[in-house]
Amino acid sequence: MRADARKNRDHLLAVAGAAIAEQGVDASMRDIARRADVGLATLLRHYPTREALLEALLRASFDELTVKAGELETSSSPADALVSWLRDCVTWTTEYRGVTELMAAAIEDTESALHTSCVTLRAAGARLLSRAQEAGAARTDMDGTDLFALVAALAWLGDQPSLAPRADHLFGFVASALLTDAAITGSGETPRQG
Amino acid sequence: MRADARKNRDHLLAVAGAAIAEQGVDASMRDIARRADVGLATLLRHYPTREALLEALLRASFDELTVKAGELETSSSPADALVSWLRDCVTWTTEYRGVTELMAAAIEDTESALHTSCVTLRAAGARLLSRAQEAGAARTDMDGTDLFALVAALAWLGDQPSLAPRADHLFGFVASALLTDAAITGSGETPRQG
Repeated sequence: MRADARKNRDHLLAVAGAAIAEQGVDASMRDIARRADVGLATLLRHYPTREALLEALLRASFDELTVKAGELETSSSPADALVSWLRDCVTWTTEYRGVTELMAAAIEDTESALHTSCVTLRAAGARLLSRAQEAGAARTDMDGTDLFALVAALAWLGDQPSLAPRADHLFGFVASALLTDAAITGSGETPRQG
Repeated sequence: MRADARKNRDHLLAVAGAAIAEQGVDASMRDIARRADVGLATLLRHYPTREALLEALLRASFDELTVKAGELETSSSPADALVSWLRDCVTWTTEYRGVTELMAAAIEDTESALHTSCVTLRAAGARLLSRAQEAGAARTDMDGTDLFALVAALAWLGDQPSLAPRADHLFGFVASALLTDAAITGSGETPRQG
């Protein structure tokens, strides 16, 4: 892609991301084109459907989250890497209102344009979880799909105005439940051994 | 209310419950009237809006869950009572597709017809949680609102076709995280003390 074409696409994506953060995944294509100061036809040439636009948005964010997972694997302890990455996933997913239902549907729907992005994200989480499990830092009865479901459920909570004030606290609850006592003790909490 | 009037109402509620279980909270009033074999005007005389109908449905179920909480307080250990009641709440909430968003909104919206029912349910859960906390069987950093949010999030997971197969496993994960080691040990799991 030529530099100016890439710049146009990046601009459209940034505008679309802001619109969806504000109005949720039902934001209209017409409104997104207007905000980006292009004609609807131009937007549709880049992204023929709203699903295609969402796919590009999700892919960009999921790529970042996947890169981040790789960095954390080398820079942080298995427990810290897992929790820090989960936090990023929930924060990001909460940003785009309504995206949790789409992600939940896409993870098992191979026809969905979002399927590959969701599977990639699940795999990145599963790697961090395995690493923590092998180090004795995480419960062994959870897998990448459970992690994906927890991210979606926590993001859903953050999406509900009345429950959002508890979302951080409940993230801490879930994160501490994922970790073993040994990992929690290691991060400075009171040991539970008698 | 006369016996036959009560019978008519109970019949309408039962039919509406089945329709909403099947089609979600957006089930049409016209369709509910047709299934109940009454005119739309008759349905609207009993329940002028869909919200009024949902309120009656929720209130009936929440009343049952509140009675159940009282029974469990006298019949079961604090830990068992809490987990068993949570299970009932999640099962019930999952039954009416789409009700979790409404509950999440109603708990803080005093204008909502569903507000009182949701507050009553939260209070029943808070009592069971306090009892478990006083017995040293549950984490002390959770309250009735956290419990309400967890029920809603678990029910939301059960509502997503792709994640529903993990909902039971994740219920177990959340339930065991709510309980203290002492309570889990008491229910037959391996003690963790060193």
